Amino acid sequence: MSFQRLGDPGAEIPAYLADGEVYDLRGVTADIDAAFLGGDGVTRARAAHAAGSLPLLAGAAALRVGPPIARPGKIVCIGLNYSDHAAETGATIPAEPVVFMKDPSTVVGPFDNVLVPRLSVKTDWEVELGVVLGSTARYLDSPAGADAVIAGYVLSHDVSEREFQIERGGQWDKGKSCETFNPLGPVFVPADEIADPQNLALKLWVNGELRQNGSTSNMVFGIRHVIWYLSQFMVLHPGDLVNTGTPAGVALGLPGNPYLRAGDVVELEIEGLGRARQEFVQA
Amino acid sequence: MSFQRLGDPGAEIPAYLADGEVYDLRGVTADIDAAFLGGDGVTRARAAHAAGSLPLLAGAAALRVGPPIARPGKIVCIGLNYSDHAAETGATIPAEPVVFMKDPSTVVGPFDNVLVPRLSVKTDWEVELGVVLGSTARYLDSPAGADAVIAGYVLSHDVSEREFQIERGGQWDKGKSCETFNPLGPVFVPADEIADPQNLALKLWVNGELRQNGSTSNMVFGIRHVIWYLSQFMVLHPGDLVNTGTPAGVALGLPGNPYLRAGDVVELEIEGLGRARQEFVQA
Repeated sequence: MSFQRLGDPGAEIPAYLADGEVYDLRGVTADIDAAFLGGDGVTRARAAHAAGSLPLLAGAAALRVGPPIARPGKIVCIGLNYSDHAAETGATIPAEPVVFMKDPSTVVGPFDNVLVPRLSVKTDWEVELGVVLGSTARYLDSPAGADAVIAGYVLSHDVSEREFQIERGGQWDKGKSCETFNPLGPVFVPADEIADPQNLALKLWVNGELRQNGSTSNMVFGIRHVIWYLSQFMVLHPGDLVNTGTPAGVALGLPGNPYLRAGDVVELEIEGLGRARQEFVQA
Repeated sequence: MSFQRLGDPGAEIPAYLADGEVYDLRGVTADIDAAFLGGDGVTRARAAHAAGSLPLLAGAAALRVGPPIARPGKIVCIGLNYSDHAAETGATIPAEPVVFMKDPSTVVGPFDNVLVPRLSVKTDWEVELGVVLGSTARYLDSPAGADAVIAGYVLSHDVSEREFQIERGGQWDKGKSCETFNPLGPVFVPADEIADPQNLALKLWVNGELRQNGSTSNMVFGIRHVIWYLSQFMVLHPGDLVNTGTPAGVALGLPGNPYLRAGDVVELEIEGLGRARQEFVQA
């Protein structure tokens, strides 16, 4: 089973997906948000479904698919976390996780348009496994402690503008936080529905051409290590999103640097987390 | 006049300060948040005060002073934005603004304790002018357009861990987002109450010793330029906070690098924005 948020931006209806059906979750929660994730909402939703008390969501197929979680309190990203991607960008494999942040207001739905920023000539793609927090993570004792704070997983697109990120002075955040730069979804999948999050295929196509084809088994720092590590430097809260890095195959690392332009279409998927499709349009 | 939020963390009461009195603003708004700031709340609050319809807030003096705005949607920070501070850190003056982000959950009240992170040996101070957004800023045409989107100003403490920031690989955010690392307040002052935000004295003391003594007149990139510049790379929303940089005098730049330890007391003030005091304690 999994969760979605369906409807117009800012007015999404929480939905529960199981048995090929889409159920209306509004009787259980107003949203798939920090209060739901941190308040044992997944368990309550399953209980309501098991009790047969969730109605079907009428007209679900006609609704826009929104991001499957409400706007995160923060988005933390791990850079250069696949060795093949570090190599293609000319970077050495980091000795410890590289951490940066993304404006939480960049989150959009998995089929929404993505805006190429007005002054951009180097808009790039990055398929990533997104980790959603379900409990507070603060000075975890060990990576094993991460299991207790992870609510689940989501397909995340860490859209990046390489000139803004690398050539405009200072820190990467400048090229990571442009409007619409974090499509999310289509589904939020609770952690216990994913047999091994460290063994999922990630793929991304641009205009139908396969550009990224990796596996979460090739992370430099695994999911548990990343969450434990972050918890030594900041407090992670329910509803926060951690983007865990991208494998090789981004425009920055490809011959000719085929950066995205208006009209391009990116499709991406992660095994078990669904498939997304975004058209790029000019801001 | 100015605004405060008074009471226990998470349960602060919005208050209106004028004529030496503290008024209860709950009849006008539930909080000093994005909806209030973006919905002409300042004007509505003034009208309610002028009409004599705001009751005094009973027992206000006994209440904790919280951060004067609700948790921002994001915190954007400008680095190396005073030439004397750039020089003391060994950096050159940037050609364009250096941008990084801070976890919005780091915001605490102006008299709350600040936690020295467990593994920290280089916790440092930074007094900064905080700019609070009142309208959406997206591709502003010119720096002059910033005036229409700035709601007001706040005293902000951009606490920083220099080892995490500079020596631990990658991006600065790792040393900027530790728990409690952004004390804010005591007051939020609407923009039209500040005659010239580009001519305010900023001061910071550690254990009574004056360490920073600057003026917002010495910013490398002025407030309007910063807001205009940011709006080319991201969308700023009502309630967002922009920390505009710190003048010289931080521990990183002082002889002997007198970093903060548990028991140290930092006091800071900006002309017209009040004075704050934080004791540092071990996390």
